[in-house]
Amino acid sequence: MSTIVEDPAPPTCKVVYASAVAEGILGEVKDSIERLGRAPLLVGFLANVDPAARMYASWTGKTCLQNGVRFELREVGKDDLEENIIAANADDEVGGIIVYYPVFGSSQDAYLQQITSKEKDVEGLSHAYLFNMYQNIRFLDPEKSQKSILPCTPLAIIKVLEHISVYNSILPYGNRLFGKTVTVVNRSEIVGRPLAALLANDGASVYSVDINNVQYFTRGAGIRRRQHEAHDTDLKLEDVVPKSDVVITGVPSKEYKFPVELLKDGAVCVNFSSEKNFGPEVKEKASIYVPAIGKVTIVVLLRNLLRVVENRQRGEAAEGGESL
Amino acid sequence: MSTIVEDPAPPTCKVVYASAVAEGILGEVKDSIERLGRAPLLVGFLANVDPAARMYASWTGKTCLQNGVRFELREVGKDDLEENIIAANADDEVGGIIVYYPVFGSSQDAYLQQITSKEKDVEGLSHAYLFNMYQNIRFLDPEKSQKSILPCTPLAIIKVLEHISVYNSILPYGNRLFGKTVTVVNRSEIVGRPLAALLANDGASVYSVDINNVQYFTRGAGIRRRQHEAHDTDLKLEDVVPKSDVVITGVPSKEYKFPVELLKDGAVCVNFSSEKNFGPEVKEKASIYVPAIGKVTIVVLLRNLLRVVENRQRGEAAEGGESL
Repeated sequence: MSTIVEDPAPPTCKVVYASAVAEGILGEVKDSIERLGRAPLLVGFLANVDPAARMYASWTGKTCLQNGVRFELREVGKDDLEENIIAANADDEVGGIIVYYPVFGSSQDAYLQQITSKEKDVEGLSHAYLFNMYQNIRFLDPEKSQKSILPCTPLAIIKVLEHISVYNSILPYGNRLFGKTVTVVNRSEIVGRPLAALLANDGASVYSVDINNVQYFTRGAGIRRRQHEAHDTDLKLEDVVPKSDVVITGVPSKEYKFPVELLKDGAVCVNFSSEKNFGPEVKEKASIYVPAIGKVTIVVLLRNLLRVVENRQRGEAAEGGESL
Repeated sequence: MSTIVEDPAPPTCKVVYASAVAEGILGEVKDSIERLGRAPLLVGFLANVDPAARMYASWTGKTCLQNGVRFELREVGKDDLEENIIAANADDEVGGIIVYYPVFGSSQDAYLQQITSKEKDVEGLSHAYLFNMYQNIRFLDPEKSQKSILPCTPLAIIKVLEHISVYNSILPYGNRLFGKTVTVVNRSEIVGRPLAALLANDGASVYSVDINNVQYFTRGAGIRRRQHEAHDTDLKLEDVVPKSDVVITGVPSKEYKFPVELLKDGAVCVNFSSEKNFGPEVKEKASIYVPAIGKVTIVVLLRNLLRVVENRQRGEAAEGGESL
């Protein structure tokens, strides 16, 4: 037994920034544009004065401009939005459509989300896409030539986890999170719940935490089910975090700080909130820390744009229609 | 000038009860069942302990039993509901499906609403039906043989207004509210907003009132537009009620009482809230008063059931498939 007091080792946490992850995806996007032979047009609809939405729109414009995608921001009154989306659906010039929510900020927005035709929906909010995501159906056609579209923020988080090798590419595609336990703090219908479902569908054991309770998303022992199931538990955050390999937070509050002391040593920590949900002490515990993912989300949006454009081409080719 | 004080005339208000309206629709339902040659099966899913939902389910069962419709109530956990609906979609024995909301009571319910296949959706909540309703598209097929399905409570109110001749059958179908001004107090996504849209699509000038503001729904001067448009106004309840021929309330609160003194003399008053939004003094002002519409809603549900079953038959016949 030694009584010598050792200096603490220097933090060994690797901080990974969104820009590094975005880089790789941008390469893919550029290749697609080249194959396409012309710049696709993304139309954004802004029908509110929400500063966050306006910021997101301005970021989209900038990223499009830098990467050879045409972007048109159409500012319309909220009462004219439905008709304007319908017109853009019908316009062959328009490659993809994004609507900056909230518009009405009520359940009327859920109706509007279904107005954008799925052939132009770069956000992945069409019911057909959401259904495929929850049901773990990855393609739109039996020939598996057209991939289903995933919602941007959850997909951006997946791309981050792939980049930092939480996804183990030794395992077969579709099971690459088998053996991993993940806690997701946020169960919104826009990010937290679809994310928990995606991770569980890829083989992870997922604890989905919101203010009410902890839900468990899993494909079961030996991941024998082909899709996840979810159920309520009586577990608390302090029960699930110590056994989690990965902790992902998305609490939209300046005041909220994740209780870092619960983390197991060497956990992977990812924050997708625009607020800093982890304090700086996270670096004393985590092996990898991703402080923000916004830049990945925008690039994933472009990737989805190229995907819907290519899906449309393949669909037309399959129908023997004109192939651009 | 006379100084004789006259006795007030006795109230001349005609009170119309839902049962009288339901009667006529039931006749239609019975005729359809006879044409069909066998009792269709309605499956209800109950995944909550909400007493109002349970009450609605029990009412549905009773009304089905009385009218030759088979009803099966399936109680399932909320986490199993999605899979159970999918199974019922695929089951040829099942004629129609109703889900008793709320299930999660969050925006997750909006996702669930799109799980029921539109071919079995007796509630009219499928996006394709809602889209047709707002866009004033009345049929599903170009041959106009299959009518689009309308949500039960708004449709029940329309049936009430037809019964009491607010709809003027002298006017051409689709324009029968031309010249009428209607105030609707409630703008929920489930009843108030679709109702305002339906009434405006049928030619009325509609003021849609909620806690925030008054919106105006109209097909414009001379009802020249083929569908309504809606916009915010700076008007107040006291501006719009005195010029309204019809006032429809749906405020789910025991405390709320509509300010009857604003009514124009001889207005038609309809309440669809389960609470009594009008005090008894409404009979001193109104020409017609409909205190509740619940019984019409249930019968409209059966009518929708028969309609989806018949639409499916027509669809199959048109495709050259088997015709039952």
